[in-house]
Amino acid sequence: MPQSEFDIIDEYFTRQRVRRDDVALGIGDDAAIITMPKGQQLVVAIDTLVAGVHFPNNTSAEDIGYKALAVNLSDLAAMGAEPAWFTLALTLPSVQRAWLRGFAKGLFELAEKYQLQLVGGDTTQGPLTISIQVAGYVPTGTALTRAGARVGDSIYVTGNLGDAALGLRCLQQPAEYAAVPTAINKLNRPEARIDIGLSLRDVASACIDISDGLLADLGHILDTSNVGASIDRDAIPLSDGLRLLCEQNTDHYAMALSGGDDYELCFCVAPQNESRVEAIASICGIRLTHIGIIEHQAGIRLHQAGRACAMTGKSGYEHFSG
Amino acid sequence: MPQSEFDIIDEYFTRQRVRRDDVALGIGDDAAIITMPKGQQLVVAIDTLVAGVHFPNNTSAEDIGYKALAVNLSDLAAMGAEPAWFTLALTLPSVQRAWLRGFAKGLFELAEKYQLQLVGGDTTQGPLTISIQVAGYVPTGTALTRAGARVGDSIYVTGNLGDAALGLRCLQQPAEYAAVPTAINKLNRPEARIDIGLSLRDVASACIDISDGLLADLGHILDTSNVGASIDRDAIPLSDGLRLLCEQNTDHYAMALSGGDDYELCFCVAPQNESRVEAIASICGIRLTHIGIIEHQAGIRLHQAGRACAMTGKSGYEHFSG
Repeated sequence: MPQSEFDIIDEYFTRQRVRRDDVALGIGDDAAIITMPKGQQLVVAIDTLVAGVHFPNNTSAEDIGYKALAVNLSDLAAMGAEPAWFTLALTLPSVQRAWLRGFAKGLFELAEKYQLQLVGGDTTQGPLTISIQVAGYVPTGTALTRAGARVGDSIYVTGNLGDAALGLRCLQQPAEYAAVPTAINKLNRPEARIDIGLSLRDVASACIDISDGLLADLGHILDTSNVGASIDRDAIPLSDGLRLLCEQNTDHYAMALSGGDDYELCFCVAPQNESRVEAIASICGIRLTHIGIIEHQAGIRLHQAGRACAMTGKSGYEHFSG
Repeated sequence: MPQSEFDIIDEYFTRQRVRRDDVALGIGDDAAIITMPKGQQLVVAIDTLVAGVHFPNNTSAEDIGYKALAVNLSDLAAMGAEPAWFTLALTLPSVQRAWLRGFAKGLFELAEKYQLQLVGGDTTQGPLTISIQVAGYVPTGTALTRAGARVGDSIYVTGNLGDAALGLRCLQQPAEYAAVPTAINKLNRPEARIDIGLSLRDVASACIDISDGLLADLGHILDTSNVGASIDRDAIPLSDGLRLLCEQNTDHYAMALSGGDDYELCFCVAPQNESRVEAIASICGIRLTHIGIIEHQAGIRLHQAGRACAMTGKSGYEHFSG
């Protein structure tokens, strides 16, 4: 028997465990009702994943559910916002119970980790597309943006860069690249740096998440802040696997410079706040690496061992441009 | 030269005229920042339109832009919420400037009418899919829901029912149905009943928008409120065109009873508030029609000239069920 839209929603998306006090009315009416906590601003972002574009077609349903929420949480992390609730627009070619079960499992695993409640959704028939709008809170006036970088600020990144691109390469060219499980996991289950974002609220001068590659996303900070940057290629944090590949062929630096999907944070810190960075790294248990400096001259200058270095690879992942 | 994702967003979606005081940071960062007005709750809804499913493939870009926002506004209307801002997830097969120009024109025409600001979006490549999440405000505790209908309440609908279904029929079976321009316009450019919704805040006991057909959507009120209803088929408001068809063949009542896409409101009113309905109709300039009564017995009983009447047609439009 065919299953109706309403049954699908009921069966897989109303069983979540998270129940927030600020959600006055959740799933099941024409709209949800939220009672905003006092003294907070609302931070909202929307991101879409399309099958075959944002994840390989054979990605597991569980990983798709996890990633669809993670990439949105990453936007909240970049703003220094605390995750609160989200809505889901799910377009599916057909109803497959096993797929829906897996998708909901991956989605809610991450939602529960951050006490994030699904408050509304729409399920439609069509090619697999997932849009999530996520909302979080910041104390009024404390959100991080792309606009505050100043000449002399240090530039940092969280974690390692390029592993998601390496993971994709492993999947796409298995004959040439031996599978690196940690890199494939980074591609399928990126970790939004929520704790770091919250800690950076009164420390960073500007912040962005790296979804389209370091050069492209740092470029957004530079454009918005009207400054430039100098980056030390050898300082860019790499996993052991990617470092080995870069030693064999420097073309592989493109994965760290221009590979998408890492969802690490890139942020700037004024000299007077720099002493606080190490404590944040220690508390959050995440490596924070100094990779360069904000300069007056527009654009990005890449250096290696004191000399100018060619920008390897394209300038960031962009849809429609390839 | 191929155009990048960022250029598209810049070119077509940042030129809007609406600038709201509650939008502290709009398009252009990782997320938007909203400063909620005091004493208000946030009302949020998300709806997706898929080409070939929610509108015919040859629908104009301008109508698609208008309708994608209108169906979301309709959810706010059903809650009695005042429109405030929205986010857009747009998935496009390719970049076509004329299409984007038309889409943005239809979208912003409606947004400007309600002083609704686009605060964020995501543009991705894939089969044409539009997800909009819209947000509005209600004074705390005044939102309309599906839950408050009581035995003895009157049931009303706004406008006429069935015209959107008639419009679709005209487009799909032109040999059998002469084109009815007002019906086709209703299909492509539904009008969200925002003013009515605002006026009903302290008048209606329950409210829903009719997106899936009267019987299906009234059914949601009845299920949520744990009541039933009796409906007078002859009282259902029809346009002259649809009335003529129903007189020729009563099967056409299915368009009014079960046709989707009308986006009129169906609401319930307790006896003590009934005198206020006429004034609202007069102020808003919209016909409000009494079509039935809430009863204890579960389910919907359709009557015609005092006798039970068969439920014509399916019980509402549902994806995946056909």
